[in-house]
Amino acid sequence: MREIRLLGLDWGTSALRAHACDGQGEVLESRHSAHGLMHLPRGGFAQALEDLCGDWLAAWPDAPVLACGMVGSAQGWAEVPYAELDGGEAALAGGLRTVSGPGGRPVHLVPGLIQRGALPEVMRGEETQVLGVLQTLGAGDASLLIGLPGTHSKWVWVQHGVTQRFCSFMTGEIFAALREHTLLGRTLPAAGEAGAFNAGAFERGLAVARQPAGRLGLLSNAFSMRSLFLTGALARHAQSDYLSGLLVGHELAGLRAGFLPADAPPPRLVLCGSDTLCERYALALRQVGLGHAEQLPQATAAGLWRLACRAGLVRP
Amino acid sequence: MREIRLLGLDWGTSALRAHACDGQGEVLESRHSAHGLMHLPRGGFAQALEDLCGDWLAAWPDAPVLACGMVGSAQGWAEVPYAELDGGEAALAGGLRTVSGPGGRPVHLVPGLIQRGALPEVMRGEETQVLGVLQTLGAGDASLLIGLPGTHSKWVWVQHGVTQRFCSFMTGEIFAALREHTLLGRTLPAAGEAGAFNAGAFERGLAVARQPAGRLGLLSNAFSMRSLFLTGALARHAQSDYLSGLLVGHELAGLRAGFLPADAPPPRLVLCGSDTLCERYALALRQVGLGHAEQLPQATAAGLWRLACRAGLVRP
Repeated sequence: MREIRLLGLDWGTSALRAHACDGQGEVLESRHSAHGLMHLPRGGFAQALEDLCGDWLAAWPDAPVLACGMVGSAQGWAEVPYAELDGGEAALAGGLRTVSGPGGRPVHLVPGLIQRGALPEVMRGEETQVLGVLQTLGAGDASLLIGLPGTHSKWVWVQHGVTQRFCSFMTGEIFAALREHTLLGRTLPAAGEAGAFNAGAFERGLAVARQPAGRLGLLSNAFSMRSLFLTGALARHAQSDYLSGLLVGHELAGLRAGFLPADAPPPRLVLCGSDTLCERYALALRQVGLGHAEQLPQATAAGLWRLACRAGLVRP
Repeated sequence: MREIRLLGLDWGTSALRAHACDGQGEVLESRHSAHGLMHLPRGGFAQALEDLCGDWLAAWPDAPVLACGMVGSAQGWAEVPYAELDGGEAALAGGLRTVSGPGGRPVHLVPGLIQRGALPEVMRGEETQVLGVLQTLGAGDASLLIGLPGTHSKWVWVQHGVTQRFCSFMTGEIFAALREHTLLGRTLPAAGEAGAFNAGAFERGLAVARQPAGRLGLLSNAFSMRSLFLTGALARHAQSDYLSGLLVGHELAGLRAGFLPADAPPPRLVLCGSDTLCERYALALRQVGLGHAEQLPQATAAGLWRLACRAGLVRP
């Protein structure tokens, strides 16, 4: 293996992912374990890191270790105060906190990002994905809209390589709560009988959010999954993707009405996240007329590399 | 006790309520048990009725028994097809189905109501509450907006005593799902430490739905409960009522944008439901400028009486 110059960690609630990077930031190898914040081994964070990366740490004693994600939250290894959005990348690089890892090895934790305002916005982990996207794309775009779909979707507006603002949607988590903990779940097929993605049902839900009926809002539209099913107008197996379409449709309607500038030319659109979810969002973006979205694979490793350079932890 | 001329039953998922009415429809006595659809005794529906009302049934063998609510659903005593909204009260009265109760006593089940359309609307139980409200108010109002807040809120638009249309909002159920089954619940005070209604927090949530930030929609605004708490701008004990205000605010925004006629004069406003919930909605209606709402107590008994008269089961 070529020389490892950075150990980058993407450490969230449910998983720990480690990327070994060479001197150009190229990922030589990636590994993961289930030792997210919720499932740490005896010995806690240091032990989880030793378990997954002990051989790398031993073989490359000088490679810095940089970790992003919920590992820097109040429930994490140490709480790293949010960096101010206005501070740009310098605030992120300058806000690293260091904890003591296996054998005293320093582990640098990336701060999350905060956007102040009457309704503040916060992210932790996605700020590094955004840097990774910018690292991958270069900074040439006048306007760039980055969508990070997930349990909580984040949308990030970037101009000339600088993040201007972002917003969050609890779409994924609310979708799960509606399916699993409301009346809507009672008539869904049993797990395992769900079948493949039903694009027609998804698009039907999307369309409702755009029709006059969409003005009633999601609290009302959600009930249509039930009433359409009761009247035989929506098949049992189509319900879940219909509901998903409703939610994503309302997310994009909110994004358009409350986040995107009304007078700007259409931005370049990039989606970054799981393939399945990104394909769903790309379909939705096309259908609601927001345009074609490029899909990038996970960009966290590239973001960690960029931040490590910026912080002077590595010299490319 | 005066002569009982009607036994009216309000039979829902979690409770059975019985009202003994005299020859003018006045309620002489009410009782209730926990024998809703979800908690029936051995012996099922007939036994539950016998348990709660056996003495009444024996003492007044000629009093008809009329039941509304989920008892007429597919999960109920017998499924009663929905009456068409266009058919008016006559369709409800003509759509009763009869099942055999204790000792062969006929029990008449009220149909629910359906409003056809691209997104159908259905109700079961609330149609009887609406009749009760009209029975109580008289039919003099040109325009009447009846709000029935609950697990699923219903809003009903009535002109000159005739229901024109209605819509549903899953507000109560989604509020519970957000509190109990998403990240938002993790920082709430323990049950029992919730404290009294925090009107300031509720109004703050209401206001967000009306501000420009409200255009982002509920999926995004819900996250502000978390971000405000994380930044110390919302106290732990204020979170729940803030979230409640957000949801009710979005319900009323949807009602205004998607249900109320844009050009009509303000209707007379009536709320019917639990006192606690109606007070919350009355406050919300005032704050968003929809006006003063009268609060009526539960109107189901009056509605059952009106329907029994219309169906010829009783002669006042």
